[in-house]
Amino acid sequence: MTTQSRILIKGGKVVNEDFSEMADVFIEDGVIRAVGSDLQVAAGTRVIDATDRLVLPGGIDTHSHMELSFMGTTAVDDFQTGTKAAVAGGTTMILDFVIPQKGCSLLEAYERWRATADPKVCCDYSLHMAVTWWDDTVKKEMESLVREKGVNSFKMFMAYKDVFMLRDHELYAAFAQCKEIGAIAQVHAENGDLIAEGAKRMLSLGITGPEGHEMCRPEEVEAEATQRAITIAHAVNCPLYVVHVMSKSAAKVVANARRNGRVVFGEPIAAGLGTDGTHYWHKDWAHAASFVMGPPLRPDPSTPGYLMDLLANDDLSVTGTDNCTFSVCQKALGKDDFTKIPNGVNGVEDRMSVIWEKGVHSGKMDENRFVAVTSTNAAKIFNLYPRKGRIAKGSDADLVIWDPKATRAISAKTHHQAVDYNIFEGMLCHGLPVVTISRGKVVYENGQLFTKPGAGRYIPRTPFAEFVYKRINQREKVGMPSAVCREPYTGEIISVAPNRS
Amino acid sequence: MTTQSRILIKGGKVVNEDFSEMADVFIEDGVIRAVGSDLQVAAGTRVIDATDRLVLPGGIDTHSHMELSFMGTTAVDDFQTGTKAAVAGGTTMILDFVIPQKGCSLLEAYERWRATADPKVCCDYSLHMAVTWWDDTVKKEMESLVREKGVNSFKMFMAYKDVFMLRDHELYAAFAQCKEIGAIAQVHAENGDLIAEGAKRMLSLGITGPEGHEMCRPEEVEAEATQRAITIAHAVNCPLYVVHVMSKSAAKVVANARRNGRVVFGEPIAAGLGTDGTHYWHKDWAHAASFVMGPPLRPDPSTPGYLMDLLANDDLSVTGTDNCTFSVCQKALGKDDFTKIPNGVNGVEDRMSVIWEKGVHSGKMDENRFVAVTSTNAAKIFNLYPRKGRIAKGSDADLVIWDPKATRAISAKTHHQAVDYNIFEGMLCHGLPVVTISRGKVVYENGQLFTKPGAGRYIPRTPFAEFVYKRINQREKVGMPSAVCREPYTGEIISVAPNRS
Amino acid sequence: MTTQSRILIKGGKVVNEDFSEMADVFIEDGVIRAVGSDLQVAAGTRVIDATDRLVLPGGIDTHSHMELSFMGTTAVDDFQTGTKAAVAGGTTMILDFVIPQKGCSLLEAYERWRATADPKVCCDYSLHMAVTWWDDTVKKEMESLVREKGVNSFKMFMAYKDVFMLRDHELYAAFAQCKEIGAIAQVHAENGDLIAEGAKRMLSLGITGPEGHEMCRPEEVEAEATQRAITIAHAVNCPLYVVHVMSKSAAKVVANARRNGRVVFGEPIAAGLGTDGTHYWHKDWAHAASFVMGPPLRPDPSTPGYLMDLLANDDLSVTGTDNCTFSVCQKALGKDDFTKIPNGVNGVEDRMSVIWEKGVHSGKMDENRFVAVTSTNAAKIFNLYPRKGRIAKGSDADLVIWDPKATRAISAKTHHQAVDYNIFEGMLCHGLPVVTISRGKVVYENGQLFTKPGAGRYIPRTPFAEFVYKRINQREKVGMPSAVCREPYTGEIISVAPNRS
Amino acid sequence: MTTQSRILIKGGKVVNEDFSEMADVFIEDGVIRAVGSDLQVAAGTRVIDATDRLVLPGGIDTHSHMELSFMGTTAVDDFQTGTKAAVAGGTTMILDFVIPQKGCSLLEAYERWRATADPKVCCDYSLHMAVTWWDDTVKKEMESLVREKGVNSFKMFMAYKDVFMLRDHELYAAFAQCKEIGAIAQVHAENGDLIAEGAKRMLSLGITGPEGHEMCRPEEVEAEATQRAITIAHAVNCPLYVVHVMSKSAAKVVANARRNGRVVFGEPIAAGLGTDGTHYWHKDWAHAASFVMGPPLRPDPSTPGYLMDLLANDDLSVTGTDNCTFSVCQKALGKDDFTKIPNGVNGVEDRMSVIWEKGVHSGKMDENRFVAVTSTNAAKIFNLYPRKGRIAKGSDADLVIWDPKATRAISAKTHHQAVDYNIFEGMLCHGLPVVTISRGKVVYENGQLFTKPGAGRYIPRTPFAEFVYKRINQREKVGMPSAVCREPYTGEIISVAPNRS
Repeated sequence: MTTQSRILIKGGKVVNEDFSEMADVFIEDGVIRAVGSDLQVAAGTRVIDATDRLVLPGGIDTHSHMELSFMGTTAVDDFQTGTKAAVAGGTTMILDFVIPQKGCSLLEAYERWRATADPKVCCDYSLHMAVTWWDDTVKKEMESLVREKGVNSFKMFMAYKDVFMLRDHELYAAFAQCKEIGAIAQVHAENGDLIAEGAKRMLSLGITGPEGHEMCRPEEVEAEATQRAITIAHAVNCPLYVVHVMSKSAAKVVANARRNGRVVFGEPIAAGLGTDGTHYWHKDWAHAASFVMGPPLRPDPSTPGYLMDLLANDDLSVTGTDNCTFSVCQKALGKDDFTKIPNGVNGVEDRMSVIWEKGVHSGKMDENRFVAVTSTNAAKIFNLYPRKGRIAKGSDADLVIWDPKATRAISAKTHHQAVDYNIFEGMLCHGLPVVTISRGKVVYENGQLFTKPGAGRYIPRTPFAEFVYKRINQREKVGMPSAVCREPYTGEIISVAPNRS
Repeated sequence: MTTQSRILIKGGKVVNEDFSEMADVFIEDGVIRAVGSDLQVAAGTRVIDATDRLVLPGGIDTHSHMELSFMGTTAVDDFQTGTKAAVAGGTTMILDFVIPQKGCSLLEAYERWRATADPKVCCDYSLHMAVTWWDDTVKKEMESLVREKGVNSFKMFMAYKDVFMLRDHELYAAFAQCKEIGAIAQVHAENGDLIAEGAKRMLSLGITGPEGHEMCRPEEVEAEATQRAITIAHAVNCPLYVVHVMSKSAAKVVANARRNGRVVFGEPIAAGLGTDGTHYWHKDWAHAASFVMGPPLRPDPSTPGYLMDLLANDDLSVTGTDNCTFSVCQKALGKDDFTKIPNGVNGVEDRMSVIWEKGVHSGKMDENRFVAVTSTNAAKIFNLYPRKGRIAKGSDADLVIWDPKATRAISAKTHHQAVDYNIFEGMLCHGLPVVTISRGKVVYENGQLFTKPGAGRYIPRTPFAEFVYKRINQREKVGMPSAVCREPYTGEIISVAPNRS
Repeated sequence: MTTQSRILIKGGKVVNEDFSEMADVFIEDGVIRAVGSDLQVAAGTRVIDATDRLVLPGGIDTHSHMELSFMGTTAVDDFQTGTKAAVAGGTTMILDFVIPQKGCSLLEAYERWRATADPKVCCDYSLHMAVTWWDDTVKKEMESLVREKGVNSFKMFMAYKDVFMLRDHELYAAFAQCKEIGAIAQVHAENGDLIAEGAKRMLSLGITGPEGHEMCRPEEVEAEATQRAITIAHAVNCPLYVVHVMSKSAAKVVANARRNGRVVFGEPIAAGLGTDGTHYWHKDWAHAASFVMGPPLRPDPSTPGYLMDLLANDDLSVTGTDNCTFSVCQKALGKDDFTKIPNGVNGVEDRMSVIWEKGVHSGKMDENRFVAVTSTNAAKIFNLYPRKGRIAKGSDADLVIWDPKATRAISAKTHHQAVDYNIFEGMLCHGLPVVTISRGKVVYENGQLFTKPGAGRYIPRTPFAEFVYKRINQREKVGMPSAVCREPYTGEIISVAPNRS
Repeated sequence: MTTQSRILIKGGKVVNEDFSEMADVFIEDGVIRAVGSDLQVAAGTRVIDATDRLVLPGGIDTHSHMELSFMGTTAVDDFQTGTKAAVAGGTTMILDFVIPQKGCSLLEAYERWRATADPKVCCDYSLHMAVTWWDDTVKKEMESLVREKGVNSFKMFMAYKDVFMLRDHELYAAFAQCKEIGAIAQVHAENGDLIAEGAKRMLSLGITGPEGHEMCRPEEVEAEATQRAITIAHAVNCPLYVVHVMSKSAAKVVANARRNGRVVFGEPIAAGLGTDGTHYWHKDWAHAASFVMGPPLRPDPSTPGYLMDLLANDDLSVTGTDNCTFSVCQKALGKDDFTKIPNGVNGVEDRMSVIWEKGVHSGKMDENRFVAVTSTNAAKIFNLYPRKGRIAKGSDADLVIWDPKATRAISAKTHHQAVDYNIFEGMLCHGLPVVTISRGKVVYENGQLFTKPGAGRYIPRTPFAEFVYKRINQREKVGMPSAVCREPYTGEIISVAPNRS
């Protein structure tokens, strides 16, 4: 198949966040030129029949860690295999995290990530920046990243003590800076002190297997940190984005905060929506270890359904994957000590199918909400909308033709990721991508990939996303604290005495 | 009036936590010898008529700071005036806090407090110990205090950064030690980092008055810390006691934790149950400043009623006062900067009346619950029960004869405390103490005090209070985490690579 | 001013539910022909400058009762004055309720309403149908109304005992029929039995003033019925719309149901968002009486802010007014007995301003959410989208040019409604409509009205609105209950005995 | 063994609701004469060694239906076998329900129940009265029952439509009468209309097995009615007691109401605390059918633990069993139609063991709370305290010696009930009664029964139980609604017009 510069998708139902309509879509030079019926198209236009199918904005995976070096080894899905798998699953953009070591330059890390990813990516991508330490240099680099590098989101860790973790006053400073420069603050919300103590305790009790990973950081450790992050962000009127909401209690914290008017967004991930933490108790070590990630999946089996209910209801907003894949032989680094199992799971390929199955097929959400949570909301929050996340004239031609009736069983045997297991192994999914179009090119069709490394582009993002900042700015204006007007106190004043104790 | 060693209280309704009955009470040598009708009493017994009155266990104030040196000055109510005021209000025991400076010996501070208090107290008292810093010395001294000094409760501060505040890993260690030695952990739950930042911000905005005190530490700062403390305590299976629960949101955190089975107790105080934080916006500086305490009273006027509802419903458990009184001329140290206003309010005298008025007279609780929250629960939690907190044969003769029909208006003009204002000024209270008996002696009767400095005794308390520890110990036994039994992993293992970033 | 058939709105910021963009809008023959920049327009096009202004979809008031005969008198705002006031406030469509008497034909009532409204309306309108009694005739008429009259929403009363109230089994039947025919069930949710008893009790206690109106039906009476309606609707998998959510507790019931996946929508109204029930205790009878409506406004002054928080957060979905205006001399029918005060308040004119002020100016929601809750969501729920509720090519040219900086004080002296008071009297509002366009015509501009009775049209609505029914239908398909497959029971069976008692 | 009139229980730990102490108990003539150490006892006193054992107040089962004729058959456990089983399990008092048919005299039904029970009961008992219809006769009979027959509790059904169900206005009237005469209102809280419709629907879908029983009345049907009952009771300031709280959602309704100050008590039962509704899906019909009761057990397996958490936390107050046992051959009446399966399960014998195992052994509650929820609270609510529910001088000698270390597996093979299955079959329980004493006589010892039919007594109860009514009465006094004082309205009044529609 050659790559056409003009494509007409005919006869499908175009699904946007707000509604669906029967319409054709005309694409040229990577951009959607028209949406409607009876479109006039130039000769040489490839026509793709989408009868009985849905035409969706391509998925945006808000959270990936391609080829991350972590815990002594490197994730096996690199930017090439990772983005190939993405488009095979209907995702046309990923947001990966730059994670500098403590004490290292954020800008240099950014450049290194760009240099790694640019030649490999098969679809568009962008970069979040992790803030793993704090001083004035970091503060200034954040500003440069926003102004010059198109980064408008910064992640702070409340876990990984002594490695990435920030203390509350550092969070306060980092959030304040995010607010100042128009970025959104992201947090990995778990109490790092408690995890460190919990891990010591589990090992001391002889619990060395993957179940110890969950037991040393039960969900209240996540809920606590989520509450704390929201409180700190509110103190500086900074918008907050909680990455990987993994538990019912943490999700409830986010939902309640939103009810109280907090500008906070929760991101459940494919793993948390599609499976659960009972696997950590699996008798086969390799099976159990393959689910290890932080925060862990939860043993309460009602968790995925609950998270999906909240996602359907806009208590949670977007979906990522935290895709960070280590093969079994890498997981085996922690065979005698769960704290040494590299953290991470797959998801970048299967996210769209898992959410369709558990969300749409189940009747919890409709196809429009599906588009919102897999694509549109991410585009809005990270200031890519309506270039990304919408099928409309002028938007990027990133879209997927979806067959809501087709089914497939997920399996490591057939997936396109480099990792040698799949945490959704055997899940029967209704709803499949049949064609994926990235930057106006068909990159996946009927099971075949037509990707090209380096075909994707880094997408810079501007600060002060309206979706996030309109309320923030208005509150800044009308909500400024003010003093009571009083006559000065003129009475007696005691002289100061030394302390007793 | 001479001091009798034998007293018969006749014709009253004896009110205990579980029920009320018409019964006489015979007291001899400081102890209740009999409760019932037609009691045989020796000649020379003084008979007090309690017809139409209630006979209650004397109140226990769980939280006082008599003559505390704090913020450059010393609280004006010392152990003598403070305990005189206490008995005038129907309270026959106080629990005061020893607060050593960072780096100083807990044992020495304990001894200093004893030396100060013993010669002055007009009723029984006991001492909580504050843990304001952490190392192995402190840990060992905690054990000595439990074993040798009768201390079974330790308070940790999450606020007062750089002065008393502990970090999360220190809280974890301190809670673990409490659990080990059978003490109950107490927390002042406010996020100290946020307060420090908030105070800076308010001053920078030119907000220097008492309203700034509340605005720099709004209630979510309290709720956050409460949630965090409960999470940490649960991680080590340590019972927790949250001192001065001041806000609806913090109270809700405690209540929800209890529903989830956490062994946690919340202590609202008289100030929070009887008045609110709107006073900080009062136009008269001295008026506003007199309400300054930490955590602050809340501007939401529905707060006191809400706290009382939860207290009535056993979501909150006991009541103290945080009595720490600074006269206006002392408050004036902060006339130009709210962070310099000495923190503290009155309450030790009026607690019983305020709770009767807002709790019992309002119909929110009955007289039995009143006894529970003003006396019995404190005795149980701090392991004084049934010696204190119950009118029964063998219990200490600490009791109060209460006239539920009488009324009085609270006023600084008539109160017995040394401080020159009263935060409850003008409140009309139904329900008054008419006679207070401490250690078998009438110490207050019809408005007259018959106290003697040094007449009270320090009451040592043993650890592992059953009310607190039965569940803790059983959970320790049946809830120990256990490992999954697995075959060892025998597959391939990757060799470790260096980190990329 | 003549009425142009072509208008170009230039230089404004077009605000839709999903985002805002600087764009011009070209209108011809009542329809939006283009949205974009540098639009080519025909000669004779009137150009309206919208620089520094917002261009919003015209408001849709989901809930009005123009010229309703109720409680012995007739509302003073008829379809003419009512819709004139509407457009003066930026609202370009109303949904009014046909309310047949018990036992009367729904179809006949529908025709009567049409005959009344059609010649008078100055903007588009549609009709909900009230189901005030139940038998097979009603059931059949509902179907005819859906098929032939464009009605897709039916309101059932749980209050107004013996007048309009249905019992639970009737609600069940009516909801089941709604589901069958693709309509949305609406409820007035208050427990009619409790109101009837409460009213008797208040009168028996000598409470005859407007405060009795609220006291006989406190908010838990509303919350109870809301919970009940949701439960019944869920039993038949019928979508539910709760009209006039007036209290925090009822709103919380709706919000929690949505979290649990219920297809339920809550409609707060301008009155409930802009003022509160403390007015019932006003010393001036006429003032107090003017706020009387059912369900009543609530005396808890934190109610409006809470409802707005939930509206901002999509816990509540749309806004109406329940506009049903009785002048003071009509209210006076109940001067000696609050149960005789005609129920109803104003709102159709001021809704948009009140929500902008309390919602957008306050920073609780942004302009896009404002559009969603004042227009778009109503259009989606009642199946008018994207014809109504969106500024896009092909949509009806119902829109309003909004000046977010301008301010006005609401007053009966200046409003366009027929009623002689205004419940928002004196409220200062930021954000004003400067031009309103209905069906492509300027009907209001800079304070002047250019309306024409009968210029509006009845807008029929088709059933099975996708926004509402996609989830319902999918659940029907995948959620059908199924039996356990078992071997038949073959054991002994006792013979039946007569009852003892 | 002969029956002694004097017993000394030596060396045990006496457990009351408020605390536990090492003490001996001396019993004479059916009454506890002394509790303490070194008791002087008369010659001929039997001494029972209770070393290492607990001495508890005998259990009070708040909810039984012995030999009830229901659904065409009669429960197999009569007052004799039922009370024998009770004492074998450590329960020394039951409260059974008199259930008159609609239209029949309550007094006559009461006499019939007395005539049936008196000659058979092996321990003390009392009677609740069901109010299954409503008119003035019923109202008067309620008063007679309270004044002359010792009944202070009346149960109203919100389910069993057309059989026992009352409508809301009847509930209002019945609750109002309870309040008037000082009784406590009890409700079976399920929405009877929804159950009737649900049952029809299930059968129409071909679902005839026991699973249909739960599916036609899911837990929201229970939660709804619970909320409604609480709302109605509050409207008349009547205390409410919700029998058999079976679901998490209903329990949450009760808990939240208590937080809001409602005087409401929730009664979970042994079945709901010890097992769950997954059994309805069991492949063996007889197994599944044996769990059928109303409201049903819930399929959510986290239900029992949740109910126990709330019971431990005093969100729920007391425990009964709803013991109403039909053998398999009786259950078989519904073999082809679940609506014909006689409703009822066992529990009277195993309640104490089940609650000890799931509550105390698990660490959720301590031994004192166990006494509260199995005995003391029931005694307080139904005005039997401290005659029942406490081990103290003067109380009835109903007590049980409990071995907290012993274990047994529950089984129909070994139980003492007449029914031929046991819903707790196979449950391993720590904590066993070893001796039961009723009315001062050993009735059960080391597995042997020494009961005598008719040895128990009917215990009349007086109204206005202080535990329940103190708050109710105080609220009546201070909470009476009052009118606003106003000048009369003197303005114009419209004349009344006829309705339009």
